[in-house]
Amino acid sequence: MQLPKEAMYAIVAGVVGLLFAVVMAKKVLSKDRGNDTMKEIQDNIASGAMTFLKREYSVLSIFVLGVAVILSVALTGEVDGLGVKSAIAFVVGALCSSLCGFGGMKIATAANARTTQAATRSFNEALNVAFPGGVVMGMLVMCVGVLGLTGLFYLFTGMTGGVREASIVMAGFSMGASSIALFARVGGGIYTKAADVGADLVGKVEAGLPEDDPRNPAAIADNVGDNVGDVAGMGADLFESFVGALLSAIILGLAAYAGNDAGQTAAVGFIFATVAAGVVASIVGVFAVRVKEGGDPQAALRMGTIVSALLFAVLVFVIANMLYGDVQGVDAMKWAIAVVIGLGCGMGIGFTAEHYTSGHTVEDLAKQSDNYATNIIGGLAIGFRSAVYPLLIIAVAVIAGYQLGGMFGVTLAAVGMLGTLGITVGVDAYGPIADNAGGIAEGAHLPPEVRERTDALDSAGNTTAAIAKGFAIGSAALTALALFVAYSESLKTLGWDLNLNLIQQPIVLAGMLIGGVIPFLFSADTMNAVGRAAQSVIHEVQRQFREIPGLREGKEGVRAEFERCVDITTKGALKEMIKPGVLAVLIPIVVGCFLGPDALGGLLAGSLVAGVPLAIMLANAGGAWDNAKKHIEKTGGKGTEQHKASVVGDTVGDPFKDTSGPSINILLKLMAVISLVFAPLIVKVFKAMPWFENFS
Amino acid sequence: MQLPKEAMYAIVAGVVGLLFAVVMAKKVLSKDRGNDTMKEIQDNIASGAMTFLKREYSVLSIFVLGVAVILSVALTGEVDGLGVKSAIAFVVGALCSSLCGFGGMKIATAANARTTQAATRSFNEALNVAFPGGVVMGMLVMCVGVLGLTGLFYLFTGMTGGVREASIVMAGFSMGASSIALFARVGGGIYTKAADVGADLVGKVEAGLPEDDPRNPAAIADNVGDNVGDVAGMGADLFESFVGALLSAIILGLAAYAGNDAGQTAAVGFIFATVAAGVVASIVGVFAVRVKEGGDPQAALRMGTIVSALLFAVLVFVIANMLYGDVQGVDAMKWAIAVVIGLGCGMGIGFTAEHYTSGHTVEDLAKQSDNYATNIIGGLAIGFRSAVYPLLIIAVAVIAGYQLGGMFGVTLAAVGMLGTLGITVGVDAYGPIADNAGGIAEGAHLPPEVRERTDALDSAGNTTAAIAKGFAIGSAALTALALFVAYSESLKTLGWDLNLNLIQQPIVLAGMLIGGVIPFLFSADTMNAVGRAAQSVIHEVQRQFREIPGLREGKEGVRAEFERCVDITTKGALKEMIKPGVLAVLIPIVVGCFLGPDALGGLLAGSLVAGVPLAIMLANAGGAWDNAKKHIEKTGGKGTEQHKASVVGDTVGDPFKDTSGPSINILLKLMAVISLVFAPLIVKVFKAMPWFENFS
Repeated sequence: MQLPKEAMYAIVAGVVGLLFAVVMAKKVLSKDRGNDTMKEIQDNIASGAMTFLKREYSVLSIFVLGVAVILSVALTGEVDGLGVKSAIAFVVGALCSSLCGFGGMKIATAANARTTQAATRSFNEALNVAFPGGVVMGMLVMCVGVLGLTGLFYLFTGMTGGVREASIVMAGFSMGASSIALFARVGGGIYTKAADVGADLVGKVEAGLPEDDPRNPAAIADNVGDNVGDVAGMGADLFESFVGALLSAIILGLAAYAGNDAGQTAAVGFIFATVAAGVVASIVGVFAVRVKEGGDPQAALRMGTIVSALLFAVLVFVIANMLYGDVQGVDAMKWAIAVVIGLGCGMGIGFTAEHYTSGHTVEDLAKQSDNYATNIIGGLAIGFRSAVYPLLIIAVAVIAGYQLGGMFGVTLAAVGMLGTLGITVGVDAYGPIADNAGGIAEGAHLPPEVRERTDALDSAGNTTAAIAKGFAIGSAALTALALFVAYSESLKTLGWDLNLNLIQQPIVLAGMLIGGVIPFLFSADTMNAVGRAAQSVIHEVQRQFREIPGLREGKEGVRAEFERCVDITTKGALKEMIKPGVLAVLIPIVVGCFLGPDALGGLLAGSLVAGVPLAIMLANAGGAWDNAKKHIEKTGGKGTEQHKASVVGDTVGDPFKDTSGPSINILLKLMAVISLVFAPLIVKVFKAMPWFENFS
Repeated sequence: MQLPKEAMYAIVAGVVGLLFAVVMAKKVLSKDRGNDTMKEIQDNIASGAMTFLKREYSVLSIFVLGVAVILSVALTGEVDGLGVKSAIAFVVGALCSSLCGFGGMKIATAANARTTQAATRSFNEALNVAFPGGVVMGMLVMCVGVLGLTGLFYLFTGMTGGVREASIVMAGFSMGASSIALFARVGGGIYTKAADVGADLVGKVEAGLPEDDPRNPAAIADNVGDNVGDVAGMGADLFESFVGALLSAIILGLAAYAGNDAGQTAAVGFIFATVAAGVVASIVGVFAVRVKEGGDPQAALRMGTIVSALLFAVLVFVIANMLYGDVQGVDAMKWAIAVVIGLGCGMGIGFTAEHYTSGHTVEDLAKQSDNYATNIIGGLAIGFRSAVYPLLIIAVAVIAGYQLGGMFGVTLAAVGMLGTLGITVGVDAYGPIADNAGGIAEGAHLPPEVRERTDALDSAGNTTAAIAKGFAIGSAALTALALFVAYSESLKTLGWDLNLNLIQQPIVLAGMLIGGVIPFLFSADTMNAVGRAAQSVIHEVQRQFREIPGLREGKEGVRAEFERCVDITTKGALKEMIKPGVLAVLIPIVVGCFLGPDALGGLLAGSLVAGVPLAIMLANAGGAWDNAKKHIEKTGGKGTEQHKASVVGDTVGDPFKDTSGPSINILLKLMAVISLVFAPLIVKVFKAMPWFENFS
């Protein structure tokens, strides 16, 4: 089977989306950067961020090349040229992900000072810089994903002779994206929190400086962290979710209609057409974000998200009805329903996240902050509880998706959840731009109303970003699941029928138990990594205050050696990201080879079951603490005991919500895609194990 | 098939064990209670504890009767008289569990002051009161379990005509034990922590009183809490693990040798004989606990545990070889190996718990306590990491057990883990006695060396108790698993073949996702419950300090109204235990009836996979914080900022390790046993659901 014509729609949509991103970027770049101090701070942030990215990518390029070689060798055998082709796909996937990170950072670090400058005039003008800046990132993630995936599909379909054969190779693409995403999330997450903690604990608490004070040697590193963690990390995360969801939908669409050529073509075509519709819907959604002066920016952002979702839903139904209404043996309307259910579930998860990290929940938590311990326990309890509804929603998505189209339906729900990625990432990525803008306002000693405007911008983004986080978590769960099912399909083609019946197969149960504890191990590792990296930043900041005379007092002409902080944070984050990253790659391969594909299946299921609630718990507990602190500050509690307790909660929550929690999302997907890619090797090696007969 | 003769060995061993408990109790009761103040404090603690138990049992009696009625009605149908018989078994199980709790509390509250008085003379004499006190509880739990189970088996085998038929009814017994255990653990856990937090936050922090100061109105409630939480709660927990493990071993032994009468008789006989051996080994182990004056009590306690384990292992091999060496189609030596592997795994889990809550780990955590947030993050990271090895060990136990004897082998590992229950519970239950003894020493203003001796006693017990906690957690996991498999066997007899293949059955996956989040919900509920109950204690203590003149200053003749604190804590704990308890009972029934037995199977598996690491994480994080605080106090850090931070960590850890964590253990077993008991109802109701056809 050849690639259906709808793939061309996706290409066209991808190109249009990129052009739109260019227009948005030009709009941002046309704005004024402000005075010289602002320019200087901006340049410092930008160069810090680029330094980090460059060094990160040079570390990762070794990893990528190494894995590419391993892939070429390990997958040589049964299928002709599978190894080399997978390696190529892997490298391209890694490159595409890096490209998104790079581009997103470039624009984010260009938009920050421009947002500050616009904020000197009005709130709306600031929004009109920051949001387009975020949208560039969103469109980049979505369209590079679409173009990379579709382009490679064209290439490999030509080379291998069919879409099904190409889809096996394409797992490498998804794995490339996932690998970069994991390192970007973990490395970026460690960077941002180490810098944040260092800046807060020494600069704010010990030296008594206000937030983002230029005398604080870690202030620039802190601002760099917002970019490398929240922009590059988040983008890479959703990029790989998007790619993984699309790929597994294609694999399972092909499997669902095996033997029905028209059905297969329709299923694959529907996916590409849906993606094209998503790009269009995202662009339209961006235009729907309009605020009058004095209007509610949060309502505007939410309006954009909703318009985009509704349009997407309508388009998907139209596509299903017009293009596939008459295809034999196919009920495309059910596909469309599955897609829309996924979209709805993503929003549902987002709204629960919003519920648990704002409003009454946060006010109650603030009340519990009259004591350190009750604040911590309260936040943890909120986190634990906040996992309940999302898991129920995901369960509903699974059941509904399956009822509508079997496992293909489940993957369609994942595709739907990510359908309007352009705008959801846009809304999310605009947050750190606003955050940076505030930092620049502080650093350049602009009048307080500027900072107030950027803070309002930031806080509007925070709440709306909760919805984006919901999409990220929900789609990670469904994508991991979809990849897991794709893994079982891949095993089938290798002659291995995955048997996950726990009761007949205790090895599956053992795999599940091991899988269940991996997210716990990963959380411990990433938390400790943040702690260690933060320690080195803390020591450096303390050293500077000690050794640079006049720094603390803000003497004219004395400046902090912020480059050293940037450098130390970069080194710390890069060093600390290696172990968890390598672990995530090795565990599935080792378990698969030694205990077999069934045990590995159990491991994937177990990691999903324990990892998804844990990731949600970490994310929302962190969000609740953060917002409880903000609530106390807003209601005049700054400096009170209550405020101090809430600062501790916020500090505990920092690695929760920005390092450990989001990393688990990627961990789950990465382990699944590695299992998928290495399935041929795993089957071969396990069959050679002396205990093979005992466990099969 | 009739009950094999070995059941009589178990009866004899049970009676001997109880006699031994009586001897130990007499030994304790023969000691001197000390001066009048000590007697008064002891009486206050004892009456507070009894009040709580009486009120708890009167609340629970309504629950037990209600469930008994439901059982009689709901299970009427296919099998003759199943409902009424199950209801009887349920009530007897609940009564046996209550009996253990009641007896254990009686002796613990009798031993506390006597330990204090002995400590006025020497450390060794104190150990010789506290440890026998704990042993009474241990032997009670083990022997009431053996006698109740075996006795009822005799009864029901007679009534139903066979062991297999009786084993179905006996699931009710296990459920009765589990239900009481859940409420006892949750209620007791809330009580002990609410009182502790109340006593600490107001008495110690606000009013500046030392620990256990008699002026503190919550001091008595705090001491009562040690008994209702750590003695009664822990005992009920292990009682139900023991009963559940034995029962599921019997059910799976019968299933494993279906059609081979001699094999079935041997399998069931082996279980009873093993239990008898365990009673003997426990008694011998108690005699091995000997310390010379100035010797190391911790080494002595560990020696007792190890002697008992080794003897048990030897006896099990002897039994397997002598009694079942020649049975057709049976390899009893493999059974023995499975039992011993279980025993070893239990100890292994215990040692990892010890590792993560003592020594270098704790010293490192103490170092991180120069800051509140790093202390919290450090403790959480320890908790997360500490789950890794236990899960791997459990996975090994599952694989090894299965290789040795299929699912029967896995249940044998669980039986082995609990084989020396008499002494492991004994070592654990002696901790709260020592703790109470310290409180009485403080309250009666005895010379400081007395308190030092009881503290040394307490700390020796703490470390050794980590091993007992390991048994509790490991056995909970294996027992829940064993009950889960028994559930699948029960479904088979009902004509339902449990299909847990995730990929063919998304409903199983949905069940797993729901199951995975239940421990999170439960943790949130229990943490909040402690918080609310603690608030009411805090307010009461504050009120007394405000309204009773001279209390804070310790004026002659002024005494705290500690009865009110006891009363308020009791009411709070009983009120708060209802919701989580009822939820645990209802969830499996609701999911089973609406989504079917397969989804329920997924739910049980999911709750196990997420719940076991979470329970371990909560327990060990709490233990690490507690010991870090103690380490700082021991190294002269009292009153420093570091110490304050460690107190916050300890307070956060309190509900972790004593309420939420241990409750999850029971939750997992309770949900499994409820599924087992209600399987007939669930199958019937689900088949009547309109969507039944879609999901089967």
